[in-house]
Amino acid sequence: MNGAESLMRTLAGAGVTVCFANPGTTEMPLVAALDRVPGILPVLGLFEGVCTGAADGWGRMTGRPALTLLHLGPGFANGIANLHNARRARTPVLNLIGDHATWHATHDAPLASDIESLARPVSGWLHAVRSAKDLAPDGARAWAAALEPPGQVATLVVPADCQWEEADGPVATPQARGPRAVASETVDAVARTLRSARQAALFLGGQGLSQAGLHAAARVAAASGARLICETFPARLERGRDLPSVERLPYFPDTAAQSLAGLSDLVLVATREPVSFFGYPDVPSRIAPEACKRHVLAAPEEDARGALDALADALDARRVPHRRAPVRPARGTGPLTPESLGSVVAALQPEGTILVDEGLTSSLPHFLAAASSPPHTHLCLTGGAIGIGLPLATGAALACPERPVIALQADGSGMYTLQALWTQARQGLDVTTVLCANRSYRILEIEQARAGAAEPGSATRAFTQLARPELDWVALARGQGVPANRVESADALARELERALAEPGPHLIEAVL
Amino acid sequence: MNGAESLMRTLAGAGVTVCFANPGTTEMPLVAALDRVPGILPVLGLFEGVCTGAADGWGRMTGRPALTLLHLGPGFANGIANLHNARRARTPVLNLIGDHATWHATHDAPLASDIESLARPVSGWLHAVRSAKDLAPDGARAWAAALEPPGQVATLVVPADCQWEEADGPVATPQARGPRAVASETVDAVARTLRSARQAALFLGGQGLSQAGLHAAARVAAASGARLICETFPARLERGRDLPSVERLPYFPDTAAQSLAGLSDLVLVATREPVSFFGYPDVPSRIAPEACKRHVLAAPEEDARGALDALADALDARRVPHRRAPVRPARGTGPLTPESLGSVVAALQPEGTILVDEGLTSSLPHFLAAASSPPHTHLCLTGGAIGIGLPLATGAALACPERPVIALQADGSGMYTLQALWTQARQGLDVTTVLCANRSYRILEIEQARAGAAEPGSATRAFTQLARPELDWVALARGQGVPANRVESADALARELERALAEPGPHLIEAVL
Repeated sequence: MNGAESLMRTLAGAGVTVCFANPGTTEMPLVAALDRVPGILPVLGLFEGVCTGAADGWGRMTGRPALTLLHLGPGFANGIANLHNARRARTPVLNLIGDHATWHATHDAPLASDIESLARPVSGWLHAVRSAKDLAPDGARAWAAALEPPGQVATLVVPADCQWEEADGPVATPQARGPRAVASETVDAVARTLRSARQAALFLGGQGLSQAGLHAAARVAAASGARLICETFPARLERGRDLPSVERLPYFPDTAAQSLAGLSDLVLVATREPVSFFGYPDVPSRIAPEACKRHVLAAPEEDARGALDALADALDARRVPHRRAPVRPARGTGPLTPESLGSVVAALQPEGTILVDEGLTSSLPHFLAAASSPPHTHLCLTGGAIGIGLPLATGAALACPERPVIALQADGSGMYTLQALWTQARQGLDVTTVLCANRSYRILEIEQARAGAAEPGSATRAFTQLARPELDWVALARGQGVPANRVESADALARELERALAEPGPHLIEAVL
Repeated sequence: MNGAESLMRTLAGAGVTVCFANPGTTEMPLVAALDRVPGILPVLGLFEGVCTGAADGWGRMTGRPALTLLHLGPGFANGIANLHNARRARTPVLNLIGDHATWHATHDAPLASDIESLARPVSGWLHAVRSAKDLAPDGARAWAAALEPPGQVATLVVPADCQWEEADGPVATPQARGPRAVASETVDAVARTLRSARQAALFLGGQGLSQAGLHAAARVAAASGARLICETFPARLERGRDLPSVERLPYFPDTAAQSLAGLSDLVLVATREPVSFFGYPDVPSRIAPEACKRHVLAAPEEDARGALDALADALDARRVPHRRAPVRPARGTGPLTPESLGSVVAALQPEGTILVDEGLTSSLPHFLAAASSPPHTHLCLTGGAIGIGLPLATGAALACPERPVIALQADGSGMYTLQALWTQARQGLDVTTVLCANRSYRILEIEQARAGAAEPGSATRAFTQLARPELDWVALARGQGVPANRVESADALARELERALAEPGPHLIEAVL
């Protein structure tokens, strides 16, 4: 058995079931090994950003790392932006990068580059294999590293000769260990803080936004009067009626700071202190007031769910019913705006929907409206690297074939990785993309206006407006095998959305705003 | 005047006339500066790989660096693959990357990452600006660095506060210095070698493949009997009837080694010794025979054209007429194959065409046929990072609006950066893309067969075949505003190609192989 097969048998034995890849010559022994190893589904992405974004979606929904297989430095580089998002989401991902044969590396062949320099910024764990016999044990270590709580990007660089030379066979992977428990002294100290705080808030991320985490947080809030606030762009948020609701920290730092003004104590739960997305002149980077005391209930790598439960118990909080009236949000009509679009989607999204949100300036109204939608999962663009939405939806749909996936997708970001539509078509995934076509990078227009710019000049217009020519998303989707339609009113969107949700397989609806 | 404007005025003064960009919030002061600084054309790419590939095309055709403007680490990362190609092509490119404000960097905001680690592998010169007053002088240094012979990628990281804070105004850029002359002793030594060599060859890259370089090389060959061989994937090769022809080193190492078997002396001209593109079991990395002596006439950073002229003079070589009969290659008919496709394009391409070749397995027959086409420029995928063709054609067309551009584009590679079609439409560029639709990553199928694989298994088929569903390139082009048609015979290709070449603006012809 060669090194490649020993690796793939090791990973299959550990529970890897999917490989998102765009391989090249230096990965072909690994591909040939997949031909011989059952149980790992090969999924082709027509661009590496599709593969890494799909691995992020898979990892967020399963808690297990998907495999990616990428070609040398440039192929990996094409996947970096979405690995950046995965890193910010703390998603387990396991990248394999084929490299030149060890003895070929010194010749600086055309495709050679410094892979480790490229990989380090997005990899919590990074290692280059040295021999075929090391490949299986190195793979097992990479697998375990990806699962290090709360999850991280692990990258293994695999020279071609280590793939094709003889090895010793697969190895067992270590048992994944769960997150470290929070010390009871920490819980007690936070409980004391909450009892005496003038105005406290829990700032929630990670498992604090799981169903169990939210229920425990709601008990804490009911017993202590603390506010519950979630990250601006959570990796995964469970929400909808029947689930305790949380405030979402606003995006712009001035609005965000206003929302935290007056807080005396901020308790961090599986996330870090909130900071401004960008730096602006005369605006503080830190969002919470200077005078507000920061406390850590659970670091991201700790057991936030258990800590919230323990905190609720320490506060003698009882389970609080959060059942709201099962009222669907009202479905908007009339012209398409972010508001009417959001209300239509919120009104129609089925229970159990995975809502992938890269709608940017077009999707906030949906977020507000969907608070009373049936329980669903909301996935965000965590790292600000646009082009995650369509790949993320692809990976989430593969991970959860029984659940509908709706992607609220901005047009500018969607163009970054539109190739994901082809993978959705090939795999027959039940993804409905609502393409929010406002024909601009709207956020940049807003930023320029906030910066006090007068009328935008010709360069600003050239770089922010997507008209001339307008993109035809119906053609772009159909050209990749995804049925598509264009709508220009809320009623037409509702009609097409109902139809798309009723039919299996992917659909795209271009909603012209 | 703020830092951003001082930089843009400095660069405009140096002769920068185009900026390929996809900016974000941290670059908006630079965009606003472009609104105020005349002479730099803003060109939007809907993905950063389009911007960097276009900058490569611009630089190859003008010898001057285009500007790119990219957003933080992830935006830059999206452009790395084509910068890798530009690095291998030794193209001058000047990247500006916006970064977080210096005082915001410590807060590790969502979009923060290690930009320098990402940029170093593709940047011959890299610097992070420290203050607004440094921005103009740092920009001048970056400009000069990009033009360091033979040309390189220079990357300047520009924190947002350095853009918006007050600066001292523009500075003058240093005079670009030409390539260093080759010592006469070196020329004389090579001349002696060629006089006594059993069988010598000049291995040509860089300016050795310019018109002047080729004419001088032909004199050397006529006087010495040396063979003329060019790199497998030259950045820019002038060719066609009336120009001296060169052999092209084959791609696969066994065939390449056969072509060099029996050489006693290999003279390197503005390139490095040929090595195998990939390492294979039991195949040497170095292509030339062990016993063949290597000589350097001109290093890539030296004046190869001058050295070739001096060498010809040292050999008392007279100017040799290389005028061949002005016979167009015969135009193939019948079914579309790489051969008939290549002959149709070679037969119809106008004089002065810029032929962008990312046809991979489909374009070699065209290369052979076009030897007797009218004089034209051939641009290759230099670094093996697929997805250069459509962006390269975009940049070349902007650089040379008076010349027709024909892109021979493989379908698998084309999908990597198909967003370039939109930029071609927006700018009204005269690019005709012949999309070679063989519905596979054919090269990988060939590599697997060469590796001795039996029938490909399900994973290999999943990762190498682009069918299920087939891509509809007509829809993908029209969806971005580029007129397109599909052809399934050589005659239909000839008809559509003639029409596309006669009409201004971009066209795409999907040639189904």
